[in-house]
Amino acid sequence: MTGFEVWAPTAEQVRVQVAGEIYAMVEHPGGWWRAGVAAAPGDRYGYLLDDDETVLPDPRSPRQPDGVHAPSAVHALDPEGWTDAAWTGRPLAGSIFYELHLGTFTPEGTFDAAVERLDHLVDLGVTVVELMPVNAFDGTHNWGYDGVLWYAVHEPYGGPDGLQRFVNACHARGLAVALDVVHNHLGPSGNYLPRFGPYLTEGRNTWGQSLNLDGPGSDTVRRYIIDNALRWFRDFHVDALRLDAVHALADRTATHLLAELADETAALAAHLRRPLTLIAESDLNDPRLITPRAAGGYGLTGQWNDDLHHAIHTAVSGERQGYYADFGSLAALAQTYTHGFFHAGTYSSFRGRTHGRPIDRNLIPASALLAYTCTHDQIGNRALGDRPSAYLTDGQLAVKAALVLFSPYTPMLFMGEEWGARTPFQFFTSHTDPVIAAATAAGRKAEFADHGWSAGEVPDPQDPQTFLRSKLDWKESENSRLLACYRALISLRRTRSELSDPRLEPVRVEFDESARWLVVHRGPLRLLCNLSADRAEIPLTGADLLSWEPAEQRSGHTILPAHSFTIHETDQLARA
Amino acid sequence: MTGFEVWAPTAEQVRVQVAGEIYAMVEHPGGWWRAGVAAAPGDRYGYLLDDDETVLPDPRSPRQPDGVHAPSAVHALDPEGWTDAAWTGRPLAGSIFYELHLGTFTPEGTFDAAVERLDHLVDLGVTVVELMPVNAFDGTHNWGYDGVLWYAVHEPYGGPDGLQRFVNACHARGLAVALDVVHNHLGPSGNYLPRFGPYLTEGRNTWGQSLNLDGPGSDTVRRYIIDNALRWFRDFHVDALRLDAVHALADRTATHLLAELADETAALAAHLRRPLTLIAESDLNDPRLITPRAAGGYGLTGQWNDDLHHAIHTAVSGERQGYYADFGSLAALAQTYTHGFFHAGTYSSFRGRTHGRPIDRNLIPASALLAYTCTHDQIGNRALGDRPSAYLTDGQLAVKAALVLFSPYTPMLFMGEEWGARTPFQFFTSHTDPVIAAATAAGRKAEFADHGWSAGEVPDPQDPQTFLRSKLDWKESENSRLLACYRALISLRRTRSELSDPRLEPVRVEFDESARWLVVHRGPLRLLCNLSADRAEIPLTGADLLSWEPAEQRSGHTILPAHSFTIHETDQLARA
Repeated sequence: MTGFEVWAPTAEQVRVQVAGEIYAMVEHPGGWWRAGVAAAPGDRYGYLLDDDETVLPDPRSPRQPDGVHAPSAVHALDPEGWTDAAWTGRPLAGSIFYELHLGTFTPEGTFDAAVERLDHLVDLGVTVVELMPVNAFDGTHNWGYDGVLWYAVHEPYGGPDGLQRFVNACHARGLAVALDVVHNHLGPSGNYLPRFGPYLTEGRNTWGQSLNLDGPGSDTVRRYIIDNALRWFRDFHVDALRLDAVHALADRTATHLLAELADETAALAAHLRRPLTLIAESDLNDPRLITPRAAGGYGLTGQWNDDLHHAIHTAVSGERQGYYADFGSLAALAQTYTHGFFHAGTYSSFRGRTHGRPIDRNLIPASALLAYTCTHDQIGNRALGDRPSAYLTDGQLAVKAALVLFSPYTPMLFMGEEWGARTPFQFFTSHTDPVIAAATAAGRKAEFADHGWSAGEVPDPQDPQTFLRSKLDWKESENSRLLACYRALISLRRTRSELSDPRLEPVRVEFDESARWLVVHRGPLRLLCNLSADRAEIPLTGADLLSWEPAEQRSGHTILPAHSFTIHETDQLARA
Repeated sequence: MTGFEVWAPTAEQVRVQVAGEIYAMVEHPGGWWRAGVAAAPGDRYGYLLDDDETVLPDPRSPRQPDGVHAPSAVHALDPEGWTDAAWTGRPLAGSIFYELHLGTFTPEGTFDAAVERLDHLVDLGVTVVELMPVNAFDGTHNWGYDGVLWYAVHEPYGGPDGLQRFVNACHARGLAVALDVVHNHLGPSGNYLPRFGPYLTEGRNTWGQSLNLDGPGSDTVRRYIIDNALRWFRDFHVDALRLDAVHALADRTATHLLAELADETAALAAHLRRPLTLIAESDLNDPRLITPRAAGGYGLTGQWNDDLHHAIHTAVSGERQGYYADFGSLAALAQTYTHGFFHAGTYSSFRGRTHGRPIDRNLIPASALLAYTCTHDQIGNRALGDRPSAYLTDGQLAVKAALVLFSPYTPMLFMGEEWGARTPFQFFTSHTDPVIAAATAAGRKAEFADHGWSAGEVPDPQDPQTFLRSKLDWKESENSRLLACYRALISLRRTRSELSDPRLEPVRVEFDESARWLVVHRGPLRLLCNLSADRAEIPLTGADLLSWEPAEQRSGHTILPAHSFTIHETDQLARA
């Protein structure tokens, strides 16, 4: 006998269809309907509300073998399928993340194909594999942020069993697994939640109707979100969650959803005896998110830090459009590098107002901020989805990598970045509803028309070629000089504890704005960067540990070729 | 030469009209326009934006002698007019508030007339006079929450000079002055701010468009609000502000407006060397508001606590409609009395969700919560604006007073409560725009039609009689037994330090739900209340300090008449 239950607080009657047969359900307090029905794994099931004969997928569906519009499937992971009993987890401090999109990471676009590439990641030296959302969405391919059945795993990737195999394979190699989860909106197609209950409010954010986090019935909606988060940790052995766009969670209650999630995650971590990590994507520059609960914060483990992206990207590339406007100088880079947030109570010209608040170093380690120069967003939200490799030299890419991997923050790479992949990462969708498909394509073109792009220039997200074009070309990685450099940088970070030291105090940056060189000091180690197209003479010398180009040392100076870096160990004698 | 300045960031041209002459203004960085013009006190002035020849009142107008639609008047308080040099302020702890509406407190409805009644307040024993909003609004009479020129003082009350005289008179009598300020919306008529700049956003709250606290240009809007708050402290010697409905301040920045205001208020208090108090009206039950800044809170001094109102009001009156639904039992009263918030992570049936968070007693003293059983809202938001005196016995009113004045919280009375005034406090307006006037009256009737009131039963807010009917009848106060009881209760509170002790730990409540009696213990003092219509036998005796009705003590019991209270001092012998 399998127990079926669903929340439908306003329904007069709820029935469940299991393997073609329809059964009555009984209402329980709080609007929950329950029935016990004999069912086998793989049996299709769904709910019928009131007099409507439509069979709706389960809001908490574990599996959608026939897509998000079809009935759900009875499914539980095989407890015998786990091979990671020895895995004890990984704390955030000391980690190096690698973000990948499962559909484009390999030609096949599946969990099993991705497993075949894990040894590359081990060789590279990263420690956490972060998957872009794998929740069920409409169509075959999508970035994943159009998820509508958050508990299910996208079937074409391999479904829940595929994710189990993937986590096993990662843990077997000492890799932790992070999962990107989206709780701030639902995708445009296949969202049947509003028929069941008050999951959404009238309020809207960038992507659609907001989740109901503080209106009537919100207790159960919050439970739906928190249970979803905990499910990945508990049922799928996931180590970390990346919480998409938390600034779009509109919650006016006295205990913010994120604080509640942090409390429950901490309790589960204690129960499971392994670290569980919560990392927010946030554009608020609000330290409250990553301030411990006891100090009045929400108690998340970490957050993405776009300021550091912007500071490095603009300093290296010279780009200044849009939200890059306040960045670009070496002074801005140095400020961000030594303080985490650039906007920390300072005026943001992009926002037209003062933005952010300084980080209290006594409460928040630098490892709580993720540092990166490539993400799915920073690449994919460009009109052409072109990576920095399309417009920067390999030397410039190496300088960016060095700045990230030499930082006190938690580094993150985006798949293919390590060899300077030439394949783009474009915005792609495969909506099955022709109206939504057309609106998505038109919306994308309209968005960039405002920035001077003609419709023909912007790739059509619905064109399958846009998806295929975005797949990594692994042949590019062979004999890549950049890849060797990334490996060396990561190896240095993992062997020299000064580099993963999460305290900001010992980090010191000096620079010459006009000559465009910059030096980061971390204990006895120094990163010397030349961001200019000319050679730079930096008044420091030391024992050379790692360089993009051979750097000459002469009369107390290091002479760095254009767009290159070198890492020294302090040479006290030479300095004296 | 008088300096005129106004913020008009999108204007191409701004002119100032002073005493009938028009002068050009010069644009300065940040969208500020300035001009120096010879002007005398009382000269009318206003601004002309772009090519529009309409003379608009100054958003920071100090005086509107001809109403909110007319030009402003040049005005500064007479520095020689201050007589309160010896005033050193009052901290919130130990205070007893008295809320009054200036227009209905006296027949004349002016500051000067109110001054004539201050000795009554001194005799009563309250220590803080809280004025409902005196900012400039359209029409002659209004509760004050339709303010549109927040820097000006409603002229029919006596204008800014009247407020100065009133503050002098209060301070001369040892009374502190609190002012109700509204920063979450603007009134429906006379709001010219949007013509000057982005003061408002598209978002709406209960009362209208929200203030722009986090969008482009919000730095200056926040400045407008904070400068307004500080103006009352600095320029008008006010001691405390009551911040209207702070839950309607929509601010997603990293430093909430209230936290910023608390920081600036603390700095001003240090500068002025007297306590400055910020008290929020909040329906969030979120301790963050009154948690110190150093502990991650917003750092406000206090907040109104409606839960205690509901707990006492329902226990005494038996009313259970609307948001009273979760209250009514003595258990709920005891819980609220000993914890401050009733809803502290508990389910609110009115809201259909879990509400609130517990107060951390180590961070927040009980004095930070205001306790009351009458406020302008709790009376005026009833269909008829009827006070508890209309439907409760004097004994029941006395029990309510005793519960408030025996509590560890900061008591507050509403004008006339102390003698059980029979005059109602109804919702009244005097909008000059016939469309707004009609909409206000219709809206009021429609609101109560939902609760079964016919249109004819609900007083018309625009009818001048509704205002006049709401004026206090001071003759009622003569020889009032209830007034004597209030005086005695306040006197006891001010002489027995156990009663103003702001710690919750020593507060203990016992009760008999079916017999409907309740006892509050505070050190050696005990308040025994009989909330039933029968006499109650309470198994405690002690030395009688103060009683509504003579209470008999017999065989270890105190026998309390129906609807009455007595205050004992512990009689250890009798108890043993």
